[in-house]
Amino acid sequence: MNYESKLSCVARGIKSSIIRELLKVANDPGMISFGGGVPDPDTFPRHKMAEIAKDIIENEYKFVLQYGTTEGDQELMQGYIDLLKKYENIDWLNYDNMVITVGSQQALYLIGITLLDEESYCAVSRPIYLGAASAFVQRNPHFINVPLLKDGIDLDYLENELEKLKKEGNIDKFKFTYVVSNFHNPAGVSMGLEKRKKLVELAKKYDFLIIEDDPYGALRFEGEKVDTIYSLAPDRTILLNTFSKVLSPGLRLGVVIGPKEIVRRVTMVKQAADLATPSLTQRLAAKFINENDLMEEIKPTIKLYREKKDSMMKAMKKHLGDIKGIDWTYPEGGLFTWVTLPKEFDTMEMFEIAKKEKVLYIPGVAFYVDEPDKNTMRISFCLPTHEEIDEGMKRLRNSINKYAEQKGIEL
Amino acid sequence: MNYESKLSCVARGIKSSIIRELLKVANDPGMISFGGGVPDPDTFPRHKMAEIAKDIIENEYKFVLQYGTTEGDQELMQGYIDLLKKYENIDWLNYDNMVITVGSQQALYLIGITLLDEESYCAVSRPIYLGAASAFVQRNPHFINVPLLKDGIDLDYLENELEKLKKEGNIDKFKFTYVVSNFHNPAGVSMGLEKRKKLVELAKKYDFLIIEDDPYGALRFEGEKVDTIYSLAPDRTILLNTFSKVLSPGLRLGVVIGPKEIVRRVTMVKQAADLATPSLTQRLAAKFINENDLMEEIKPTIKLYREKKDSMMKAMKKHLGDIKGIDWTYPEGGLFTWVTLPKEFDTMEMFEIAKKEKVLYIPGVAFYVDEPDKNTMRISFCLPTHEEIDEGMKRLRNSINKYAEQKGIEL
Repeated sequence: MNYESKLSCVARGIKSSIIRELLKVANDPGMISFGGGVPDPDTFPRHKMAEIAKDIIENEYKFVLQYGTTEGDQELMQGYIDLLKKYENIDWLNYDNMVITVGSQQALYLIGITLLDEESYCAVSRPIYLGAASAFVQRNPHFINVPLLKDGIDLDYLENELEKLKKEGNIDKFKFTYVVSNFHNPAGVSMGLEKRKKLVELAKKYDFLIIEDDPYGALRFEGEKVDTIYSLAPDRTILLNTFSKVLSPGLRLGVVIGPKEIVRRVTMVKQAADLATPSLTQRLAAKFINENDLMEEIKPTIKLYREKKDSMMKAMKKHLGDIKGIDWTYPEGGLFTWVTLPKEFDTMEMFEIAKKEKVLYIPGVAFYVDEPDKNTMRISFCLPTHEEIDEGMKRLRNSINKYAEQKGIEL
Repeated sequence: MNYESKLSCVARGIKSSIIRELLKVANDPGMISFGGGVPDPDTFPRHKMAEIAKDIIENEYKFVLQYGTTEGDQELMQGYIDLLKKYENIDWLNYDNMVITVGSQQALYLIGITLLDEESYCAVSRPIYLGAASAFVQRNPHFINVPLLKDGIDLDYLENELEKLKKEGNIDKFKFTYVVSNFHNPAGVSMGLEKRKKLVELAKKYDFLIIEDDPYGALRFEGEKVDTIYSLAPDRTILLNTFSKVLSPGLRLGVVIGPKEIVRRVTMVKQAADLATPSLTQRLAAKFINENDLMEEIKPTIKLYREKKDSMMKAMKKHLGDIKGIDWTYPEGGLFTWVTLPKEFDTMEMFEIAKKEKVLYIPGVAFYVDEPDKNTMRISFCLPTHEEIDEGMKRLRNSINKYAEQKGIEL
């Protein structure tokens, strides 16, 4: 039968993740990958988790093997409330401010369903986190693509666009601004406190919600911790968090925190979407964070990533530093840096050369919902060894040289 | 701020599950509940599962604690392929015919997103499984509500409606017919083989897909096993299955099986919806079904449910049998029977009386996407003891008597 004719508009328009396709060669022999943003599995506290899992299945089976509520495990919520109190000075949270999701990806998807219609507007950064793009794009809203600067999105640009919307009479269709506040994926940049405050001012002035996605905040190597946007404006910010980068991505646990009116609707959408997050993974994480100091536990991980970031910054300076017009970001945490090559480059085209040189990166085109900047790429430093980082950068430089030669670009 | 103004049409239109609200009193002291369809947690193989969980977190942590693919764990898929070969004579499946979901609820939701637009048509039974209703309603399609008879949906009615659509020129917008083939929730009825074949004929004639939801098929107490609709027409049927009723609902594991062209699109929608089902729960189920004969394991559960069904049928005959015009279904498996009271009854209104009498059922209104039959109710026999079943039915009869008296209905 003609299956195509049975598909919805969403299904017909959907594209598979470019990253997924590109990363298929990541395991080729001899390949050095700066591609995936996956944590090193040896950083996961597997021994403790194994003991907890056995214990809760034996003794709390009436909870962990049974249907749970859509909102999520209150033991996990309590653990998270305690963490936010201790580390973020957020001390006003109740269970009805939270819903546990199947990873941050589900949170983004539910936010899209809960807030966006086709006629809605939302502001996102360019480049944008790929998972947010894929979630929001399914709702087919109007995007305001705000340039991402070294200290977060360009708020003057945003305000200018909001003014335009207001003049057109469409400002009431503007739903939210989406930001990754710390160590942006893919760009590696963070938003400073003054800018966070300014964003909150804009949110009040133009009456919109802020979606603050913060999967990497706990992975800070250096620099001062900055207050969450959520803590500056809890009545109009929805904070997304996840255990994927600090405990284990295989558990697929995220959390939506926000005004109870919004959280209630997100929960109702989730009820239709999957009824509930697995009870087992939730209780496992709950026990772990209640029995351990998560921030102490991840210190070795942070040290590991900081050292790799240092190696990466050193290697980039050494191998790429002399290229005229090149630019890259300096991450104070997280897993990524973002490289901008001279305008003439097309990193997707160059990818074939890099593959032959046995080095992988993610072409920047993956991270735009509008016309992409083709001369960009995302570089991750979390998985390769220090030696591989240096060698991989050398190979990347070779790829750049070969591409430049092919295209007649002067370096 | 005015949160309502920020919501999407979907979020504004959504209603919380009636069942959820009603079941809040299920744990009141002395209450006998025929409400929830949750399995008895003592039937879960917790000891074996505890051992497996510990083992895989210790030894397969690079898989179980790490991101997985959107399609799902191939070890689980293989286990499921083997099960379907052994018990359903389905021997043509490959990995690309399958995607693992967060319970059947996610499968239903993804099907809705993948196949339905606002202008689409789909056929469902009346009454309909509540979870399917909530998933499909979010897409706001046109529903053809087909009466559910004692042997499945009324195919003459369906054909008549399809003819109408054809005459109107809308038949190409008809996407699928959704059926629960075995031991329907809420109605307890099953579709016989001849009717399955007839449905397949209609699907070919009018070119539509069949969504066959089969969460209860393995819980057959009596009667002959019937071929799945999927096995009769694998090119135009999507089979949904789950581990919730045969292993544990807390794992939240379902599976979509169907033509690879459709499965691929469902997978792409899932990628945006939650990236992947947790690796841990998938591998845990995989090990369990690969190391045990699932059908042997659930024999005690089936015996338990059969005995409770027998008690329920006996109690219904004893306490309700003399009511003129009453009707109920006889389930050969699953967890439910469906009661139709005389036309004058409103089971939602009567619920308040029943609550005082300390017996719970689910009013039928929960199971319609069109104008409900208010005189219906769902009765579940899986959780109460044999004594409670008899006592609960006595209380239900008291409630019926009191309601009849209040309303001046002659019994």
